[in-house]
Amino acid sequence: MGGQERSLTQEAFTTRLNAAAGEVERMLDLLLGSALLPGELARPERLLAAMRYSALDGGKRLRPFLLIESAALFGAAGEGVLRAACALEMVHCYSLIHDDLPAMDDDDLRRGRPTNHRAFDEATAILAGDSLLTYAFDVLGDAATHADAQVRCDLVLGLARAAGLGGMAGGQMLDLAAEASGATLSRAQIELLQAMKTGALLRYGAEAGAIIAGADAQDRAALVAYGRALGQAFQIADDILDAEGDEAAMGKRVAKDAGRNKGTLVGALGLGAARALRDALAQQAVDALAPFGARGAVLAQAALFTAQRAH
Amino acid sequence: MGGQERSLTQEAFTTRLNAAAGEVERMLDLLLGSALLPGELARPERLLAAMRYSALDGGKRLRPFLLIESAALFGAAGEGVLRAACALEMVHCYSLIHDDLPAMDDDDLRRGRPTNHRAFDEATAILAGDSLLTYAFDVLGDAATHADAQVRCDLVLGLARAAGLGGMAGGQMLDLAAEASGATLSRAQIELLQAMKTGALLRYGAEAGAIIAGADAQDRAALVAYGRALGQAFQIADDILDAEGDEAAMGKRVAKDAGRNKGTLVGALGLGAARALRDALAQQAVDALAPFGARGAVLAQAALFTAQRAH
Repeated sequence: MGGQERSLTQEAFTTRLNAAAGEVERMLDLLLGSALLPGELARPERLLAAMRYSALDGGKRLRPFLLIESAALFGAAGEGVLRAACALEMVHCYSLIHDDLPAMDDDDLRRGRPTNHRAFDEATAILAGDSLLTYAFDVLGDAATHADAQVRCDLVLGLARAAGLGGMAGGQMLDLAAEASGATLSRAQIELLQAMKTGALLRYGAEAGAIIAGADAQDRAALVAYGRALGQAFQIADDILDAEGDEAAMGKRVAKDAGRNKGTLVGALGLGAARALRDALAQQAVDALAPFGARGAVLAQAALFTAQRAH
Repeated sequence: MGGQERSLTQEAFTTRLNAAAGEVERMLDLLLGSALLPGELARPERLLAAMRYSALDGGKRLRPFLLIESAALFGAAGEGVLRAACALEMVHCYSLIHDDLPAMDDDDLRRGRPTNHRAFDEATAILAGDSLLTYAFDVLGDAATHADAQVRCDLVLGLARAAGLGGMAGGQMLDLAAEASGATLSRAQIELLQAMKTGALLRYGAEAGAIIAGADAQDRAALVAYGRALGQAFQIADDILDAEGDEAAMGKRVAKDAGRNKGTLVGALGLGAARALRDALAQQAVDALAPFGARGAVLAQAALFTAQRAH
């Protein structure tokens, strides 16, 4: 391990992670309030409630954290950065709602609570997902996110490409297709699937921080490399947890991937090799931060945290 | 009726409508090709096929036509305008895919063909809708649509707001809620529901043409007024067709609205008064074009066409 990430204690990191999550929560609560924006005709109560149900009080807020901390590398912070972070989180939350639907992964629990379609109903869940996805682009397109329209367009374009058919949604399609066919995926196929399904959005989190902060091409590329390695480590860690985890710790059904013949690198490589790869990727993410010196300490910890998390 | 729309024969209008639909088809085919954009990792075959299934060979392309003709009012045309028109159409197509799902309107036929989830499966249909919605913002955010990033942001923001919880998706929520409750909606409630569910996207079509052409605030407001009245006329015409139509002409189940206790203005006002209101709104749309003089002839015909169409 390099020395830079050691300058931040685990405790200091957790404090920072939680503080960012609190800020994200506050901004999401504001964005998903009942006040209408210009051009909106109404915010139907049930739809707003379903959007809030899945967007608020949820998870570690890792993706927004990556965006916030990447922007902070260049001294950028404030409401605009928070708005962009919330747009990213809305896309993540939409994907969870849709992935949980009966036609997809058919999950009843998410973060220890009923999934959106269980708490509301399928139609409402579909619309809540659609609306969170749509709202993300509203937030990014709005001048309140950044004064420079070119920056906002770059944020929009990057998010659309990370989330769409060539990214997250495409990855979910590959995952479903693999499940349906029952075929064993090659390592390359698994890596592609994971880079799309979970990697693209995590990578975008790091890149979007560079975009909103106006970082130069070299620094942006460093953060892309960081985000890409972190994304891979994240997914392998997830697969390892799924293989060895217990239901109480995860707050959702476990060992379902194996049961459904989903391709994971744990399956392809075995648990030991998967752990080694996860740690190597986390280190690769840390190494990508070298250009930032000591300033990269928080993001370095984020990579280690991601790889070594217990849930 | 004013004189301006008479300068265009029905035949000339139809030719123009069909020509625009052909251009839109060509551009959609290009955008939904298999070539990857920078940042895309793969375009999974089945997902792309499902997106193409619902986006290509579909309908009159009224929304793109409104955008193209509104832009043409100010001399704007070309690939950028077509791209924006296709983005709008993608959002329309996504909404049809999701609205047809078993959890929503549960339709088996759309434009005389199996609905997306019938031709593919529910999971694929959900993802195809999600991906078309996402791709629309990719297209608008891309510099190929317009050189000025501020214009692109205005297009993104307008589309997101027309399509999201305060617009189309919210309208679908209100519609489902009304159906579930079985309550009779007031005229004001029906008008709000329709302004959101179908009106917002049609209104955006007219407004987006003004945005991409760089029209001034006054001209943009005129097109908003035009699009709003046209959108109302469109929905009442749809409800009238549903009340009196036959399955062969519509290519989908008819009279289902009445059967499901959906609120329509036909139900609230009666068929005769609904027809009169439809025609008055079409005229209102035509009148909103007064500032454009003879240049408004095509859009005026579009309003009359929308109100008087047979399917």
